[in-house]
Amino acid sequence: MPRYRLDLEYDGGPFVGWQRQDNGPSVQQALEEAIARFAGHEVRVQGAGRTDTGVHALRQVAHVDLDRDWPADTVRDATNHHLKPAPVSVLAAAPVPDDFHARFSAVGRAYVYRLLDRRSPPALDRGRVWHVVRTLDTDAMAAAAGHLVGRHDFTTFRAAQCQSASPVKTLDALEVSRVGAEVHVNARARSFLHNQVRSMVGTLVEVGLGRWRPEDVSRALAACDRAACGPVAPPQGLYLSAVRYPGE
Amino acid sequence: MPRYRLDLEYDGGPFVGWQRQDNGPSVQQALEEAIARFAGHEVRVQGAGRTDTGVHALRQVAHVDLDRDWPADTVRDATNHHLKPAPVSVLAAAPVPDDFHARFSAVGRAYVYRLLDRRSPPALDRGRVWHVVRTLDTDAMAAAAGHLVGRHDFTTFRAAQCQSASPVKTLDALEVSRVGAEVHVNARARSFLHNQVRSMVGTLVEVGLGRWRPEDVSRALAACDRAACGPVAPPQGLYLSAVRYPGE
Repeated sequence: MPRYRLDLEYDGGPFVGWQRQDNGPSVQQALEEAIARFAGHEVRVQGAGRTDTGVHALRQVAHVDLDRDWPADTVRDATNHHLKPAPVSVLAAAPVPDDFHARFSAVGRAYVYRLLDRRSPPALDRGRVWHVVRTLDTDAMAAAAGHLVGRHDFTTFRAAQCQSASPVKTLDALEVSRVGAEVHVNARARSFLHNQVRSMVGTLVEVGLGRWRPEDVSRALAACDRAACGPVAPPQGLYLSAVRYPGE
Repeated sequence: MPRYRLDLEYDGGPFVGWQRQDNGPSVQQALEEAIARFAGHEVRVQGAGRTDTGVHALRQVAHVDLDRDWPADTVRDATNHHLKPAPVSVLAAAPVPDDFHARFSAVGRAYVYRLLDRRSPPALDRGRVWHVVRTLDTDAMAAAAGHLVGRHDFTTFRAAQCQSASPVKTLDALEVSRVGAEVHVNARARSFLHNQVRSMVGTLVEVGLGRWRPEDVSRALAACDRAACGPVAPPQGLYLSAVRYPGE
C-alpha cells in the first residue's frame, strides 16, 4: 500500500471539524470520498491536527494509503477535482515511507489566530476573523502571552472534553503582533490540548481590552482550574498554519 | 440637509455592482435602504466609483444628505446595524461641506487586483482572487505594466459600454508585486475607463504566462483597438482600495 502525504488548505466554516462525525460534514469525510472516487477503493485519511468545528487550515497535513502507485501530481489534481465544490484544497501530494504518520510523526504544530479590532464589522473577512469592537492593547497582550510560554500544567486552558493523557505541555511561542488592521496571535508547540489556543487567545483578549492585567494570566495559569480561564475565542479566527516533522 | 461622507468596505460577490439596477441587489440600494430605516426618510447615496458586478471594495467613498444633524458615529453604527446581513460595512462617517461630492470631488482612485498563481484551487480565498494555475513571471509583467503608465489613449483597454467622454487617461502607477503566495497589481489614476483595470490585468497575465512579450502590450496600447486587448480579468480579484480628495 503506497502511502501519500497530503498538504491541505480548508475553510472550516461549513464543516463540523476535521474528524468524521455523525452530525454533519467533516473535512476528513470530504477527502476520503474524493480520494475514493478516483482511486476506486475506500480509504482512511489521517490528519495531524483534529481541528474543531469552524476552524480553518492554511496547511494541515494528512496521510492516506492507496492500493497502487499513482503519480503524486495525479493524487493532488484528481483529489482536488473530486473535492469540488467543498472548500478544501490539496496543496501538495508526495509519496512517503510506510512509517510516516501525519499525526504521530509530527513534532510541531503552529496556529495563527486573526483578530479584527475595530468598531465596524468585517464585510470581506466575515467568518475569517474574530471581530472585537474595541482597539486591543497589543503590548499588554504580548506581556501576558509571555507568562504562558514554556512548560506548564495548562489545565486552565483545556476543554473539559480534552482526551490528552497529561495537561502538561511545552508552549514554544505565543506571539502577538499587529498586521495591518488586524492583531495576530501566533502559537507554536509540539502539540496542544483541546481548545488550548482558543482558551489562551480569549484570555489574552481580556488583557487587550483592559479587563485583566497581564499578571492575572499568570495567576489563572497557576490556578490549574478551568474556571479561571477567560472566555474561549470563537473558532472562525483560528487557522492551523503548519505541521512540522523530524528533519524539517 | 447635512451631508455625510461614508467610507465603505464590501464583498462584491452577492451584488450586481455598486449602482442600482433592476436585475438584482446593488451596494447602493443596500446602503440607501439601511440609512432610510434609521433616518426615517428616503435618501440617495452617491459613490466615488461605480464598481462592477462582483468587484469588491476595501475603501469606497460615498456621500449622503440627511434631514437633520446626527452624530457621525450614530450614522456609522446605525447604518451598520440596518445593513445586516448584507456584506457591506461603514468604516467611517463624517460630516462634510455641502460642496463635497464623493464622485466629482475625487482626484484619485486606487485599485488592487489579487492573483493566486498556483496549481491548487483556493479554499479560503475563493471569490477573493483570480486563480491562475501556472506561476506568473512578475518581472515580465512589471516590464509590460511600465508601457501602460502615463497619459495614453486607452481605447484598447476600455469596455464597449464605457460612458467616459474621452478614452485619454493618465495612469499614474501600475505596479506588479509578489505578496506571499499571491501576485498583486496596484493601479492608481485620477479616474479609470470602464473595465480598464480588469482589461490591463488580463493582458498582463498573458505576459506573465509567457504568451505575450512585454512589448506586445505596448503595441496593443498603440493599436487603440478593443480587439487588441487580452482577455478581461474576472471581477472577483478586483478591489477598489482608496479614493483621494484634494488636500489628502
